[in-house]
Amino acid sequence: MIVTFGEIMMRLAPTGYLRLNQTSQLEMTFGGGEANVAVSLANYNKHARFVTGLPDNDIGAACLGQLRKWNVDTSQIKTNFGRMGIYYCEKGASQRPSKVIYDRAGSVFSQMKSEDFDWDTIFEGAKWFHFTGITPALSDNIAEATLEACKRAKAKNITVSCDLNYRKKLWSKEKANRIMSGLMPYVDVLIANEEDANDVFGIKAGNTDVTAGKLCFDSYRDVAKQIVDRFGIKTVAVTLRESVSASNNLWSALLYDNGNLYSSKKYNIQIVDRVGGGDSFGAGLIYGLTEGYDCQRALEFATAASCLKHTIEGDFNNVSVFEVEALADGDGSGRVQR
Amino acid sequence: MIVTFGEIMMRLAPTGYLRLNQTSQLEMTFGGGEANVAVSLANYNKHARFVTGLPDNDIGAACLGQLRKWNVDTSQIKTNFGRMGIYYCEKGASQRPSKVIYDRAGSVFSQMKSEDFDWDTIFEGAKWFHFTGITPALSDNIAEATLEACKRAKAKNITVSCDLNYRKKLWSKEKANRIMSGLMPYVDVLIANEEDANDVFGIKAGNTDVTAGKLCFDSYRDVAKQIVDRFGIKTVAVTLRESVSASNNLWSALLYDNGNLYSSKKYNIQIVDRVGGGDSFGAGLIYGLTEGYDCQRALEFATAASCLKHTIEGDFNNVSVFEVEALADGDGSGRVQR
Amino acid sequence: MIVTFGEIMMRLAPTGYLRLNQTSQLEMTFGGGEANVAVSLANYNKHARFVTGLPDNDIGAACLGQLRKWNVDTSQIKTNFGRMGIYYCEKGASQRPSKVIYDRAGSVFSQMKSEDFDWDTIFEGAKWFHFTGITPALSDNIAEATLEACKRAKAKNITVSCDLNYRKKLWSKEKANRIMSGLMPYVDVLIANEEDANDVFGIKAGNTDVTAGKLCFDSYRDVAKQIVDRFGIKTVAVTLRESVSASNNLWSALLYDNGNLYSSKKYNIQIVDRVGGGDSFGAGLIYGLTEGYDCQRALEFATAASCLKHTIEGDFNNVSVFEVEALADGDGSGRVQR
Amino acid sequence: MIVTFGEIMMRLAPTGYLRLNQTSQLEMTFGGGEANVAVSLANYNKHARFVTGLPDNDIGAACLGQLRKWNVDTSQIKTNFGRMGIYYCEKGASQRPSKVIYDRAGSVFSQMKSEDFDWDTIFEGAKWFHFTGITPALSDNIAEATLEACKRAKAKNITVSCDLNYRKKLWSKEKANRIMSGLMPYVDVLIANEEDANDVFGIKAGNTDVTAGKLCFDSYRDVAKQIVDRFGIKTVAVTLRESVSASNNLWSALLYDNGNLYSSKKYNIQIVDRVGGGDSFGAGLIYGLTEGYDCQRALEFATAASCLKHTIEGDFNNVSVFEVEALADGDGSGRVQR
Amino acid sequence: MIVTFGEIMMRLAPTGYLRLNQTSQLEMTFGGGEANVAVSLANYNKHARFVTGLPDNDIGAACLGQLRKWNVDTSQIKTNFGRMGIYYCEKGASQRPSKVIYDRAGSVFSQMKSEDFDWDTIFEGAKWFHFTGITPALSDNIAEATLEACKRAKAKNITVSCDLNYRKKLWSKEKANRIMSGLMPYVDVLIANEEDANDVFGIKAGNTDVTAGKLCFDSYRDVAKQIVDRFGIKTVAVTLRESVSASNNLWSALLYDNGNLYSSKKYNIQIVDRVGGGDSFGAGLIYGLTEGYDCQRALEFATAASCLKHTIEGDFNNVSVFEVEALADGDGSGRVQR
Amino acid sequence: MIVTFGEIMMRLAPTGYLRLNQTSQLEMTFGGGEANVAVSLANYNKHARFVTGLPDNDIGAACLGQLRKWNVDTSQIKTNFGRMGIYYCEKGASQRPSKVIYDRAGSVFSQMKSEDFDWDTIFEGAKWFHFTGITPALSDNIAEATLEACKRAKAKNITVSCDLNYRKKLWSKEKANRIMSGLMPYVDVLIANEEDANDVFGIKAGNTDVTAGKLCFDSYRDVAKQIVDRFGIKTVAVTLRESVSASNNLWSALLYDNGNLYSSKKYNIQIVDRVGGGDSFGAGLIYGLTEGYDCQRALEFATAASCLKHTIEGDFNNVSVFEVEALADGDGSGRVQR
Repeated sequence: MIVTFGEIMMRLAPTGYLRLNQTSQLEMTFGGGEANVAVSLANYNKHARFVTGLPDNDIGAACLGQLRKWNVDTSQIKTNFGRMGIYYCEKGASQRPSKVIYDRAGSVFSQMKSEDFDWDTIFEGAKWFHFTGITPALSDNIAEATLEACKRAKAKNITVSCDLNYRKKLWSKEKANRIMSGLMPYVDVLIANEEDANDVFGIKAGNTDVTAGKLCFDSYRDVAKQIVDRFGIKTVAVTLRESVSASNNLWSALLYDNGNLYSSKKYNIQIVDRVGGGDSFGAGLIYGLTEGYDCQRALEFATAASCLKHTIEGDFNNVSVFEVEALADGDGSGRVQR
Repeated sequence: MIVTFGEIMMRLAPTGYLRLNQTSQLEMTFGGGEANVAVSLANYNKHARFVTGLPDNDIGAACLGQLRKWNVDTSQIKTNFGRMGIYYCEKGASQRPSKVIYDRAGSVFSQMKSEDFDWDTIFEGAKWFHFTGITPALSDNIAEATLEACKRAKAKNITVSCDLNYRKKLWSKEKANRIMSGLMPYVDVLIANEEDANDVFGIKAGNTDVTAGKLCFDSYRDVAKQIVDRFGIKTVAVTLRESVSASNNLWSALLYDNGNLYSSKKYNIQIVDRVGGGDSFGAGLIYGLTEGYDCQRALEFATAASCLKHTIEGDFNNVSVFEVEALADGDGSGRVQR
Repeated sequence: MIVTFGEIMMRLAPTGYLRLNQTSQLEMTFGGGEANVAVSLANYNKHARFVTGLPDNDIGAACLGQLRKWNVDTSQIKTNFGRMGIYYCEKGASQRPSKVIYDRAGSVFSQMKSEDFDWDTIFEGAKWFHFTGITPALSDNIAEATLEACKRAKAKNITVSCDLNYRKKLWSKEKANRIMSGLMPYVDVLIANEEDANDVFGIKAGNTDVTAGKLCFDSYRDVAKQIVDRFGIKTVAVTLRESVSASNNLWSALLYDNGNLYSSKKYNIQIVDRVGGGDSFGAGLIYGLTEGYDCQRALEFATAASCLKHTIEGDFNNVSVFEVEALADGDGSGRVQR
Repeated sequence: MIVTFGEIMMRLAPTGYLRLNQTSQLEMTFGGGEANVAVSLANYNKHARFVTGLPDNDIGAACLGQLRKWNVDTSQIKTNFGRMGIYYCEKGASQRPSKVIYDRAGSVFSQMKSEDFDWDTIFEGAKWFHFTGITPALSDNIAEATLEACKRAKAKNITVSCDLNYRKKLWSKEKANRIMSGLMPYVDVLIANEEDANDVFGIKAGNTDVTAGKLCFDSYRDVAKQIVDRFGIKTVAVTLRESVSASNNLWSALLYDNGNLYSSKKYNIQIVDRVGGGDSFGAGLIYGLTEGYDCQRALEFATAASCLKHTIEGDFNNVSVFEVEALADGDGSGRVQR
Repeated sequence: MIVTFGEIMMRLAPTGYLRLNQTSQLEMTFGGGEANVAVSLANYNKHARFVTGLPDNDIGAACLGQLRKWNVDTSQIKTNFGRMGIYYCEKGASQRPSKVIYDRAGSVFSQMKSEDFDWDTIFEGAKWFHFTGITPALSDNIAEATLEACKRAKAKNITVSCDLNYRKKLWSKEKANRIMSGLMPYVDVLIANEEDANDVFGIKAGNTDVTAGKLCFDSYRDVAKQIVDRFGIKTVAVTLRESVSASNNLWSALLYDNGNLYSSKKYNIQIVDRVGGGDSFGAGLIYGLTEGYDCQRALEFATAASCLKHTIEGDFNNVSVFEVEALADGDGSGRVQR
Repeated sequence: MIVTFGEIMMRLAPTGYLRLNQTSQLEMTFGGGEANVAVSLANYNKHARFVTGLPDNDIGAACLGQLRKWNVDTSQIKTNFGRMGIYYCEKGASQRPSKVIYDRAGSVFSQMKSEDFDWDTIFEGAKWFHFTGITPALSDNIAEATLEACKRAKAKNITVSCDLNYRKKLWSKEKANRIMSGLMPYVDVLIANEEDANDVFGIKAGNTDVTAGKLCFDSYRDVAKQIVDRFGIKTVAVTLRESVSASNNLWSALLYDNGNLYSSKKYNIQIVDRVGGGDSFGAGLIYGLTEGYDCQRALEFATAASCLKHTIEGDFNNVSVFEVEALADGDGSGRVQR
């Protein structure tokens, strides 16, 4: 059983490629880094428990219904008076970037306290604990709860993974560095991209210009090694996005484990919806590692899973193990399946 | 020129009669008591200036675009960092009531200060000032700003109207009583329903059971008289809703002016969307009074206008003077206009 | 085989109860008095040939496709360079009337000449010819063609029916009177409502106030008799609409034949879409008379058919003989058919 | 814990009031008598386990996801190669009846065998077992399984309820009589309407003409008593629908228990969607009886619950205990809840 | 006149790129190999008669209406009690393949018998008969009817074409080989792709790896020659799809006639909907050959027609001769046509 | 303040990639060359006044509402009895071109007379006047009004820009040459593409084959120079579209000013909606020049603005100065903006 801990938001998106000031309809779904990971794992037939807080009204109830639909264990979600965070998501195309507007301040989850979480119950039967850098950024209380969760997990011999996921609107780089550095000693598997590592820990690789869509693969070994050396983390995974345009990305990933660097296939993706791409990579990696895959296969599974996410509407990666493996094994031709 | 002052929210409503936990699409419109009044008046070709605060992002911009579309003067709307209030609106039917869920705390407008409003500029050219009981309920700052606006309006000889509109989720009856009582001395025209008068001022009429859909018309003269006597208000209007069901209401109104009680026709309404019904009455009344209609005609105009609102989707009463007058003059047959 | 002759327009309607200035989507269907009659008859498994002119572009082609879908014989429809008439149709509710805006000037059909129609071919195999008062109102050319059609029909012993259907935006009452009076000698069956008879021929019945939704049944015998006496028409049918509101109408009809007045059941209708109600009555009547029904049964069939039309979206009466007869025979309970 | 046993189908419905030959879009939901009961009970926070068979493809998976969303226990649903039953549902209006077309033959569930169901596991923790007359009508195998389930339930002291629900397209009256008569000895609570009792058991009450929308209340005591006398059932409930039109029904119910006849309030309903009305009554009754309500209160709860169902889109009665009780306690005014 | 013979199914597709477990709406259209060919030919102004069986309910009627809309001759379609086959179609994107789920067992057509088809009437005026390998795969009865049709066609000197179209869910390779080999002696024009030829007849070309999107053009001459040699077929056409991804395919074709191999232009296609691509090629080829085009031109017409199909939603290739020829003649620039 | 003068039409477009004969819904927006320029400039916070004529009905009112929404100054728009021009717009994909069908004859604007425009009032405060070659093509009256406007503008020292925009369905090349040549002496900035210059003035550059998507950049200097030499225009801009397919265009532009040729970056665009691309270039150029940008920067701004237009649904270029500059400054990577 895998536990993920974080915030889930309502996602409101205009139909198709309309912008917010053109539309009269919004698609309502739900999403958030750790919820997305839980849904992916549930889709892979893993027991995934998502821990969060939700409003005790029809909005919270609608969100709970969706999580149940996707087979996520919602037994440890608490509800309370208050609001749910929202994010508006405009889909970009070609040279026009996708745009996300957050309205998440004051959510029920961000206002919960460390003692609201009963980690003994939450971790009952758990083998893995996952969170992202967004969770401790939400509030000091939640940062404290995250640290507490990490300690408890460690004490229970539960593997801990973290996706750095720096959000500049939630906290400063300085605060992120301080808080995340305090959490790293408990982390076994770290997922990041170059920007995250730089933003949060000031760890840089040379010669990369992200906006130009060009990435220097070799320099990542250096980034990974610096992370491992600084925090003693066993496994570091880095996702590599080369943005040709909002409609077309190249996507691959690296895994650094025990001093070895593994490199995945690279996918040329026509994008349907790229939000949640990183989360689907994390979930794929957790799946592979908990299934006992070797590093290369776990990395290929994670990369193929997240490649497919870019073809799925919404935050949740609505694909099966069978579909991920078919792609990882080489069939990206998209021929009709009858 | 008429100035209205209050909050405008994003309104999110499931399609048709779906409930929030059934829908994947939300209709996005905007609405709020004073904005609704401004739009109605602009539809009647009045110069209507709406004063509020909005977030300085694409959400706020979308709202501004809608207000401009409806010909509202947005020149005195300020934008700032922050969020916009939201309300979710499930349409009821038959025995199932409509349901409104608010997520409005912490909006840009509610966090503005009295000194953020430059009343001299705002009131330039104004003959009428309108607000509802929702505005001062939003925050102490806004309550202070409302009082300041009333004082300035009075000093400039601007007619002041207020729709009581008690919202129990925003403040207690005690606080409402205290704040609203302080505003009443500046009010020339008060709009209310029996519940409001009772909730806010403890003024009751006998023998009415609102949920049973039965109202005793006669007792309203007493309510109106008590209001006039207590606060020295010249004109009091009371809307009378008899709820047969969520799909069917009877709708009429009374006007008490200089000791005379005027009573409108009563409409039997098949409801399309009843939110904003009261606001459309207020706007109709302001229109009639600023046009110099006599009391009976102003009341009939306001009642016909608000009857039509119940047949219009969204908060805004999308009808013309011609259409209101056709109904007030007696054609409610709904025959096709070619 | 039944021939109908007239204009078909594109119908553009906002979704649901939205008004034209609220919607960003329009439902595109097609409709027009004589086309509606042809579709109804084809739905009753009659061979119905609709004669008109359409633009020779994708708009005309889309319309032809729809007519074929509904099994109408389109073999005598001509296409030419030009435009198709359009009408915008806002659905009313309760006290708000439905509203129709025409944009039909200069259509391909209205600019056709009498010699463009090869009546010998058109009438091959025909037993009935139907047109409405809209057709000759479109242009002098088309008025001439209508007269020619009537003459040819008479010469071929084809029964001729006409629905008066006065449209004040197309011609004056004076011109209507002159042209229609010239056509009446060829008409065997005339369909009208009281307003039409008055508007076109100045024939009135006393004591009726249409907008108030009250109709004096008895006075219609007088109207019918006047028509028969003046023009020597054998059969006159009058539809009686009592408009309670845009959502609720009472609907019945009378038939005057050989000096006898037959009166139908009266239906209390919750309206889905009332456009085309009169046309569906005409089609029902033609069906009944061509099937050899007696007067009472033909009238009940026509009235039940047109009652059902009010529950169908769009101009076309999408019901079968079986469904009409079930209602005419008494089951208006609306119980689920499994 | 309550176990329900039956078939769930895909429901495909045109948008709004469109007919099947007018629409290009179908709303896809799921529904079936026993599934509807399970969803209702789960909405009332009861542990409800639904037992059925589903195809082992994406269609079956979509259905499972919906059941989970509604909090139904799906642990005992088996999947297999094959198809899912479908029903098409056209919404009627006014005089036009709703129309249901079934395409359910050969479904996975109907082809399961008695031995495919492990009743010991299924009934673990169960206090109540519910099925409808549709289940044994599906196939001889399923009829056998139903009998087996009844026997096991009885042996385990589980209360058994049955909704007669005669479907003439599934079996003849003779076969229904034979099979259902064999099941009745195990039934504690029987739900029916007059038609069912007559169709299945030939038990009639006098003076009722269902299509005319008129029901003679008194005669139902006789029907209930005959059922009790013949089969020794403890409790019989009868729902009473008076169909004014497809848009408007009167709805009430009776309960016969220990020789006493209880009668509910009668609701005048503007219909949104009446499919599943009977199922929501059954679920309400089961809820009331398992909660230990007295007969009158259980009946009022069930009737109010099913009244509300008519205002909800889809088969599933998407309402809470709080909402049902508010209506049962008298507030049917439909006033906005803020 | 061209006769096509086969099954038409309801096609249910989620909106846009949603998957079946994400959508609440399904687009309802109709399609099937031989129906698609008939619609294409009717769009090219050919008289196309489609022969099939349909249910005698509203579903069958809706399908008939669509076929008539597209100008297909439906005079020889029989209706009977039963069901219509359905296929669910999820649109793929980029690395995620499109997915088709069939629910076609037990359809009215598949249960018809050879004697249900009156080939003398069906073939009255026919010059061409077309079927695909799906038709005889549906049932033994239909296989027998297909053989009978081929024999009658041959006797009447009607050209016979067949698209191999192997469907592994309908029959085994062994049975396909046996049945199809029995039909080949009557076939004048065979359409296939390499997979089909291999699957059905075990005829292989070397060095092609379909899933990798790479095809060795030269080897196809060998495949075509083997087919010609084995069955004595005059003309063999092979379509060549190189799947870069679900969003992007390269598309071309070859024609082998009288020992000569013709090769078409190759199109680089951004896919809107690729279902029916092969059928649109067949229709284009039939059009070209019946119009007397030389081999190269007929092949280019067919390839351009099927290229355009990939840009059209639904099974039916909604393009005109003019549009196909414009592309075949070289304008694939996609510049706006005003 | 910038004045633009021309016609605005209703734009009706099928949903997504559907063709006109497949859709039952049309997206209703508004657009036209000069209106599009005004909206763009208003989006850049310029005061933009659009001068036209509209029908005095709900259609005209809906259009006015949209223009106000986009912050366009509508104070000089006149309304009158009549119709609004319409254009139908089918979106192309890959090898299938987009298709535009006009129904614009007889519009209110085209029937206005020169004296209907009060240029002194219209030009009050104006610094720039813009029109396209469509405006004088609409009618002789409007051509006369355009000439008058140019003369007045020149007299008032207002800069005049013109986008050649030849429309072959509105006038012949000969008439276009004659009328446009009469207007050129007043034009300061001319925008064109090679086709326009050739079609209207017979000015050609060698070696370009537009449909093949290949353009010879160098030859444009010659075209621009010929225009400058013939008409004495100061600045000439040429947009260069290389149509790979309807889904993919390369887009760049040139500016010829004072004998110098400036060349923009070239964008590889995945197209969402390319209608209005040229207009958005014109607006960007006017913005740059009125802001005092140097030639290269103004050209880059205009090209980036029009690149972004291709990613926006509808005629109006819904982007901000900030977004245009971000692209012009080099970020075309389309990375998500949070």
